[in-house]
Amino acid sequence: MSGTIVEFAVPFAVFLGDASDEIYTKTGFGLIQWRRSSCAGQVRLPGCQVDTGVADLTVAQAKSAGVRSLIVGSAAVGGAIPPHWIATLCEAASRGIDIVAGLHTRLADLPNLSQAAAAGGARLIDVRVPPVGLPVGTGRKRTGLRLLTVGTDCACGKKYTALALEREMRARGMSCDFRASGQTGIMIAGRGVPMDAVVADFVTGAAEVLSPDNEPHHWDLIEGQGSIFHPGFLQVTIGLLVGSQPDAFVVCHDPLRQEPLGCSGFAIPAIAEVIERTIAIGRLTNPAIRCVGIAVNTAKMSGSARAQLRDQYESQHALPCVDPLIDGVGAIVDRLNRGKS
Amino acid sequence: MSGTIVEFAVPFAVFLGDASDEIYTKTGFGLIQWRRSSCAGQVRLPGCQVDTGVADLTVAQAKSAGVRSLIVGSAAVGGAIPPHWIATLCEAASRGIDIVAGLHTRLADLPNLSQAAAAGGARLIDVRVPPVGLPVGTGRKRTGLRLLTVGTDCACGKKYTALALEREMRARGMSCDFRASGQTGIMIAGRGVPMDAVVADFVTGAAEVLSPDNEPHHWDLIEGQGSIFHPGFLQVTIGLLVGSQPDAFVVCHDPLRQEPLGCSGFAIPAIAEVIERTIAIGRLTNPAIRCVGIAVNTAKMSGSARAQLRDQYESQHALPCVDPLIDGVGAIVDRLNRGKS
Repeated sequence: MSGTIVEFAVPFAVFLGDASDEIYTKTGFGLIQWRRSSCAGQVRLPGCQVDTGVADLTVAQAKSAGVRSLIVGSAAVGGAIPPHWIATLCEAASRGIDIVAGLHTRLADLPNLSQAAAAGGARLIDVRVPPVGLPVGTGRKRTGLRLLTVGTDCACGKKYTALALEREMRARGMSCDFRASGQTGIMIAGRGVPMDAVVADFVTGAAEVLSPDNEPHHWDLIEGQGSIFHPGFLQVTIGLLVGSQPDAFVVCHDPLRQEPLGCSGFAIPAIAEVIERTIAIGRLTNPAIRCVGIAVNTAKMSGSARAQLRDQYESQHALPCVDPLIDGVGAIVDRLNRGKS
Repeated sequence: MSGTIVEFAVPFAVFLGDASDEIYTKTGFGLIQWRRSSCAGQVRLPGCQVDTGVADLTVAQAKSAGVRSLIVGSAAVGGAIPPHWIATLCEAASRGIDIVAGLHTRLADLPNLSQAAAAGGARLIDVRVPPVGLPVGTGRKRTGLRLLTVGTDCACGKKYTALALEREMRARGMSCDFRASGQTGIMIAGRGVPMDAVVADFVTGAAEVLSPDNEPHHWDLIEGQGSIFHPGFLQVTIGLLVGSQPDAFVVCHDPLRQEPLGCSGFAIPAIAEVIERTIAIGRLTNPAIRCVGIAVNTAKMSGSARAQLRDQYESQHALPCVDPLIDGVGAIVDRLNRGKS
């Protein structure tokens, strides 16, 4: 695979800016959850409403603590870096701390940052630059097996569910690989294709490159993007779906989400609608596509509410329903291994 | 609109390379059909199987004839320029003829071409570079009316149908504008957004920019891209559909096409399937979306076969069916003006 390989020096600190909500800081939370041992702390600006639970550091304290990389773990809609965040990034770069980001804005295009990095001897590392030479999608059927996580919205557990599936399946001795399609996933996996940064014509082709031909019983566990009903991002979702040609998919859902991220006036689709539409479109490149489970984010619900919700979804859809971070994903892997049903 | 404005000096010549089939030279044919009076001729390489019907010129003859721009009117799948075409482009540039192209490959990235252009005092003009600062799509309902041309495949008449609709509606005194979403359309219209070159995350937003708020009775006639069932390009098609939020659409179809362009082993979808899927997905941003006609390319059919085909499609779908270049599109505009039916 000609995917982007990302490497950065540790320990790192996570930069959260003045993010107002956790849904804008999924990168930061992901890094701390999956790479906690390499994380020295978080750098936050006044007014930040998000706390990842690690130590607060100023840039000077981070330098003293031996931090080698400051990873931008927050973004506004569209992947931009607000202008008032840049001074802090410049301060870190001028002290020789590498800056790592996976946003639409390239670090070198931010005012003064290149000069600060040159002065401090720091590197600017963009993990969201797609590989060169991506092909146009052909729809050719590939060998091996694939599972794609999809969702009722953006930022509702698609990456975590795929990572949890990889962990569970490897524990059972199954051959599988997590395939990252976004910046945080690439930071965790060390490789992948930043799907939303690919030029539109090549999205299906990029998805084909992301999960190449493999052994007959090998599973690629592909991190999904966006939502098939999101008015801003569905083109990425659908290109990834058709290029991934998944044999199986899991629907990820946040039961507390009120409207699609960044799109007021629209509704979160019903899980059944997402299943139906995903199968309708996915059949184009894999007629055998099927749903094998539902993954819910119940972190903010009580134990009894969670149990009730799971029971409700399981009976409504005749599918296993789990919170991957609380229940694990064993029930979904069981269903996957039962074959078609 | 912050769209790309393209301007080039005339007279121009069209460069066709050694294209093997007309489906790869739609840019060249479009330019000659809509800008014939500014075209001095065509430059072809040995083995070229395509003839646009204008005078053949060598680069030297083009220069002597006063040609000021050589427009690349052909491409391979994916928008690449084959290496063996480059020497001819270099020769033209070194003689001071501007090179104009709308391909994925940027002209400045082709070997030796920048040097040849510098030596000859020629410009390299890429019409496929998207505007900067495109937003993420929001799905917000805009004022004014919109019609999108869609298709059962790539390259089956979507641009021509939209241009023919503009001509017919203006002749009737209706307020309307052709909105170009691809390189040839941009060359013809002088403005637009090259949708397939936009970064994936911004495709819906680019479509929103392409047809902004307008007067209540004004129609934007939006050039569609790809096909909703094309395994390589459907992400562009669907992003353009949802961002365009069309009130009406026309399905364009080439009855002689055997399989989707560049995708062997796949079938051309039925017109009814395209109508159903376009409505299902388009409803997300415009619940009133409806199909108002079918545009067929019957250039290679006999008169009787054409009449039979039109009758068949009209009765099957209860919609007007026309070949825009033979019959005009009056029947479709009549249907549009009848309102919902």
